[in-house]
Amino acid sequence: MAFHYPNGRKYVPAEKSTLEKSKRKNPSYGKRGMTLEDDINDSNQYYLDRGIAVIHKKPTPVQIVQVDYPARSAAVIKEAYFKQASTTDYNGIYKGKYIDFEAKETKNTTSFPFNNFHLHQIEHMRNIIKQRGICFVILRFSTTDELFLLEAKELLVFWERMENGGRKSMTKDEVREKGHRIILGFQPRIDYIKILDNIYQLDSST
Amino acid sequence: MAFHYPNGRKYVPAEKSTLEKSKRKNPSYGKRGMTLEDDINDSNQYYLDRGIAVIHKKPTPVQIVQVDYPARSAAVIKEAYFKQASTTDYNGIYKGKYIDFEAKETKNTTSFPFNNFHLHQIEHMRNIIKQRGICFVILRFSTTDELFLLEAKELLVFWERMENGGRKSMTKDEVREKGHRIILGFQPRIDYIKILDNIYQLDSST
Repeated sequence: MAFHYPNGRKYVPAEKSTLEKSKRKNPSYGKRGMTLEDDINDSNQYYLDRGIAVIHKKPTPVQIVQVDYPARSAAVIKEAYFKQASTTDYNGIYKGKYIDFEAKETKNTTSFPFNNFHLHQIEHMRNIIKQRGICFVILRFSTTDELFLLEAKELLVFWERMENGGRKSMTKDEVREKGHRIILGFQPRIDYIKILDNIYQLDSST
Repeated sequence: MAFHYPNGRKYVPAEKSTLEKSKRKNPSYGKRGMTLEDDINDSNQYYLDRGIAVIHKKPTPVQIVQVDYPARSAAVIKEAYFKQASTTDYNGIYKGKYIDFEAKETKNTTSFPFNNFHLHQIEHMRNIIKQRGICFVILRFSTTDELFLLEAKELLVFWERMENGGRKSMTKDEVREKGHRIILGFQPRIDYIKILDNIYQLDSST
């Protein structure tokens, strides 16, 4: 679909290959047509369209260094760097409740390593719990395409075990025991709201 | 403060002049040492440090087109464009409540024009209200440095007046009448949480 913006600048589609490369820290992304992020974004759009919940992915944080302003065209960012996010990637509201989560995946088949998580994301989750928000992670074992929703309070137990010298991961059995399996659907693909309804009995609170 | 990241790449500070230029659609920014955005970010940091609230500005949405990966250096974004935000700029949680707001300023002394607002931001506010979130705007009359907090439900009344053929702005008197004056302080600079406590009687709900 080639078109031009009214301002005369060419429409430049996001080049899939370039964008995927930018995710090379997470090499399991981009091996399917749809990424975990795509699936979650689609699910959020589904919730939004039906007035179920308002949850958005935060934009990727970028440190902008140089911007050009070509005549009669949109500003072009010519130099910028990826910054580490200081929060989780997704937040929003559902039935009056603040919702906050992060999505991570691993190729590992027997455990979920913590090197996927950043300390400030963990700190952020602690802060959200203190403020009585609903905070969790969506974990994907990409090899088997298994998804789990794990509440942040459970994740923190495993994280603190690591801080106290324990293993640098959660075993898959632990995730299975403490987490909630998400069965991939069609619409929405990842129906995490249904799981929140079950955990927090939100379904009847309207 | 010159330093290098552990990965060997030079620390590149955001050049004030370049960043300010990127806000040229909002020419009243950058005329002081501190911008409205700086003041709000500082206030959010104040709330965060003291465990009062967890509210963050969302990163500027950028469409990334080309990324270079120099050997042994951080990825460099070589071509990207500013995208229009699909939500408001700030959101988070305070005492279990979902908080969502946008900050806007005008050089106008007698009214606040609506050309500062985008339709999808207004739609987003409507969605947040439906989900029972706390949604508002912080309005700054930059010439006199007067700030007001105006609840989204009040803003929508004026917006709908415009949609029905009325004026394309709110008068300052209307903002004064329906809004809540924010007196600039030292710490935090913009104590909007105090105003929310008054409006929603959140202070005693803990």
